[in-house]
Amino acid sequence: MPDYAKIKQELNGIAVEDHPALVKQKSRDFYWYSPILKDELDHVTADLVVSPTSEEEVIRTLKVAYANGVPITPRGAGTGNYGQAMPLSGGIVLNLINMNKVKEIHPGRVICEPGIVIAELDKQTKAHSGQEVRFHPSTAQTATIGGFVAGGSGGVGSITWGGLRDLGNILRLRVVTMEAEPRVLELSAWDLQKVSHAYGTNGIITEVEMPLAPAYDWVDVIVGYDDYMDAVRFADGLCHRNGILLKEVAPIAAPVPFDYFTRHKPWLKEGQSVVVLMVTPHSMGPFLAYAEKMKGDIRFRSDTVESMKGIPHAYELAWNHTTLRALKVDPSITYLQVQYPGPDHVAKVAKMTEIFGEEVIGHLEFLKFDGQIQCSGLPLVRYTTKERLEEIIRIHEDNGCPIFNPHRYTLEEGGMKQTDETQLAFKKETDPKGLLNPGKMIAWDNPDFDFKAGKNYLFPGLQAFEKV
Amino acid sequence: MPDYAKIKQELNGIAVEDHPALVKQKSRDFYWYSPILKDELDHVTADLVVSPTSEEEVIRTLKVAYANGVPITPRGAGTGNYGQAMPLSGGIVLNLINMNKVKEIHPGRVICEPGIVIAELDKQTKAHSGQEVRFHPSTAQTATIGGFVAGGSGGVGSITWGGLRDLGNILRLRVVTMEAEPRVLELSAWDLQKVSHAYGTNGIITEVEMPLAPAYDWVDVIVGYDDYMDAVRFADGLCHRNGILLKEVAPIAAPVPFDYFTRHKPWLKEGQSVVVLMVTPHSMGPFLAYAEKMKGDIRFRSDTVESMKGIPHAYELAWNHTTLRALKVDPSITYLQVQYPGPDHVAKVAKMTEIFGEEVIGHLEFLKFDGQIQCSGLPLVRYTTKERLEEIIRIHEDNGCPIFNPHRYTLEEGGMKQTDETQLAFKKETDPKGLLNPGKMIAWDNPDFDFKAGKNYLFPGLQAFEKV
Repeated sequence: MPDYAKIKQELNGIAVEDHPALVKQKSRDFYWYSPILKDELDHVTADLVVSPTSEEEVIRTLKVAYANGVPITPRGAGTGNYGQAMPLSGGIVLNLINMNKVKEIHPGRVICEPGIVIAELDKQTKAHSGQEVRFHPSTAQTATIGGFVAGGSGGVGSITWGGLRDLGNILRLRVVTMEAEPRVLELSAWDLQKVSHAYGTNGIITEVEMPLAPAYDWVDVIVGYDDYMDAVRFADGLCHRNGILLKEVAPIAAPVPFDYFTRHKPWLKEGQSVVVLMVTPHSMGPFLAYAEKMKGDIRFRSDTVESMKGIPHAYELAWNHTTLRALKVDPSITYLQVQYPGPDHVAKVAKMTEIFGEEVIGHLEFLKFDGQIQCSGLPLVRYTTKERLEEIIRIHEDNGCPIFNPHRYTLEEGGMKQTDETQLAFKKETDPKGLLNPGKMIAWDNPDFDFKAGKNYLFPGLQAFEKV
Repeated sequence: MPDYAKIKQELNGIAVEDHPALVKQKSRDFYWYSPILKDELDHVTADLVVSPTSEEEVIRTLKVAYANGVPITPRGAGTGNYGQAMPLSGGIVLNLINMNKVKEIHPGRVICEPGIVIAELDKQTKAHSGQEVRFHPSTAQTATIGGFVAGGSGGVGSITWGGLRDLGNILRLRVVTMEAEPRVLELSAWDLQKVSHAYGTNGIITEVEMPLAPAYDWVDVIVGYDDYMDAVRFADGLCHRNGILLKEVAPIAAPVPFDYFTRHKPWLKEGQSVVVLMVTPHSMGPFLAYAEKMKGDIRFRSDTVESMKGIPHAYELAWNHTTLRALKVDPSITYLQVQYPGPDHVAKVAKMTEIFGEEVIGHLEFLKFDGQIQCSGLPLVRYTTKERLEEIIRIHEDNGCPIFNPHRYTLEEGGMKQTDETQLAFKKETDPKGLLNPGKMIAWDNPDFDFKAGKNYLFPGLQAFEKV
């Protein structure tokens, strides 16, 4: 057991918290979305929360942690759903929320610290020059830009720009390594994959440079259809209209909208599926002409509603907020993340809808994938057993619809189900003791793990579960 | 023969020109790109050029022309290549270049008169709020926005936004009808197809509302490849990278660049094919990383060149400027307009390249078509005979590559080769005497014309050719 009294002393001058309740609070994220992760990770907690305000303090903290062999798990706002920010072996949670300064804004790009909340970043770049980040998670009002880069993939705006993995959607990251003498590295272009979407296992991000898109006063729109597949076809057709600028296109099947979108309920119709949209004001005319032609039932428009007070943003009905709103009303619900590779993505969605009926409720997010319009899914699942969930996953995969499993806390199992050699090699170089967010990269802990054996990885270093 | 002395009097107060040399000058466009159109239309001239400065003067002019049974052919800057602005039966050329005011600029849209030159419009919207039109022809420095809407299709920026035909890429047009009492109509959404790309046969445009995109200081780049198909594959791959923002992507085969791009010659390499590009400054890093990976030879960058004085814009090497530059050096060259429907567009290009070798020199423009990355071609043809040109067209079409024939002056033959019922019905309603740009809409003149018979349409009203 590391000597935390000594460590606290060595961190003198940097904000440190060790009150168990407060530390536990900062040791969680939205892992409880998954009944499986809730079981596995509910007891996890750090020993200390350290909240640096500068890169210098980050370096000092890492140096102390390295010397004492203490794990470091970085944290933005803790809005991830896979335990990304949860300290499986305890140690220090590095809370980066106070590193929140915007440093420079230029046409098409911004340089800032990682801890700034995305909505605040957008507010500043919009006020400065009518710009905003290209895309953001549905948690933009609380999530940090650094957390998004380290633990996210795409979101609201991905219909135009694709995802974080795409060259050009992150411009530069500055990271501190976990060594006796921490180094500061600047990564760009191909090198970014070493640290983006690595859950902080490969260095602590202290500065990000992100591309910007023009900011508009996006109009929230909800279009209703009696048949879910009509909603899907409308969304797909709309996304293929080059001249209509959209930021969000999410078909969501009944009964989700009427039953779970409580603030929007006055505008919704029982039994209808919907498409949740964000449209630029100057595309509203053409958009409405297209929606009318496609017999869409315009249920809600933020540009004509009397007041938006108390009504969430459209994007807060989409992505994982759809899941959240369902969970709030019906805790037995969980979800999956599905790909429907094109060009027959609509047919694949129809097939899955037919197979599962009410058990798996459709929710799609349209986005750009390698230059093509595609959709990925975050369907809601009426959870019964672990076994049935595994079966639902298998049926999807048997039908050509790969699953990114949101019920796993490792990079590989929630992702490509194979070792990322680039990330592994970089970790060997920059975190030789394996102290950064331990347990998240299987390739590091167990290079021989067989991803095809169909067994879950259980991190041996996971804190022993003691029921209190 | 109309009494033009009387007509001039009736137009009192409006600028009118009747000096034959000056009238002839304003009766041409770039029809001479085509050896066939040059033959057919070289003698065409109007009787008067009328240059209104307001919608009111347009209405007065149309009223007088209607009463006197005089044809009206509207003209922007005369940069079209199909005789769009040429008065086949004489009469009045309506020169709209003096109607050039910008009326309103808003986030994402601009309202202006039709005669403003596109580069000037961009200058004003950029100065106002960092915006520019979504796409423009390579003639932006001289072409008018109204001429583009009436006679163009796509251009520089179409890689992001598609073409004018796409819902949302024109927001609204105000047009004056050709009746005893001309009406002023406002058209938007689906109704726009009645007048856009109708060569002014369906009403005179007096105001346009166009969507705007963010303006950037686009970087001109030329990338060299020894093999043309490598250049094509690089361009196609690049366009599929969601995160890299481009405005222009044109692969052009050797020997065109080195032989015909005289101002850029110092940077080019003999025998190399190139890709001509416009890249946002904030995408240059990722772009260069991708180009390096694809073994592209960066020959030219406007952001590192010592001075751009005397060097044309990259887009002035592309679209029909490629043709123009070739023609200037070798007048025996002409061109075609080819579609290579995807997803196997690259394979189709390879096939055509293989079949024709040096006779048809590759020039592609990448663009978005119904949400997909596609390429269309403006290949240069070493012209021998009309018959061989027809054969080249037939071989393309036999291989699944439709041709839009740039050697025809009618809407139908240069386009979809079928009657546009919407445009025809609208013309019946708004130009009952058929006085607007006569001879351009076959469906009006000869409803029974058989497009499949393989014969060219010869407008009976075409001015008799008298060699002077």
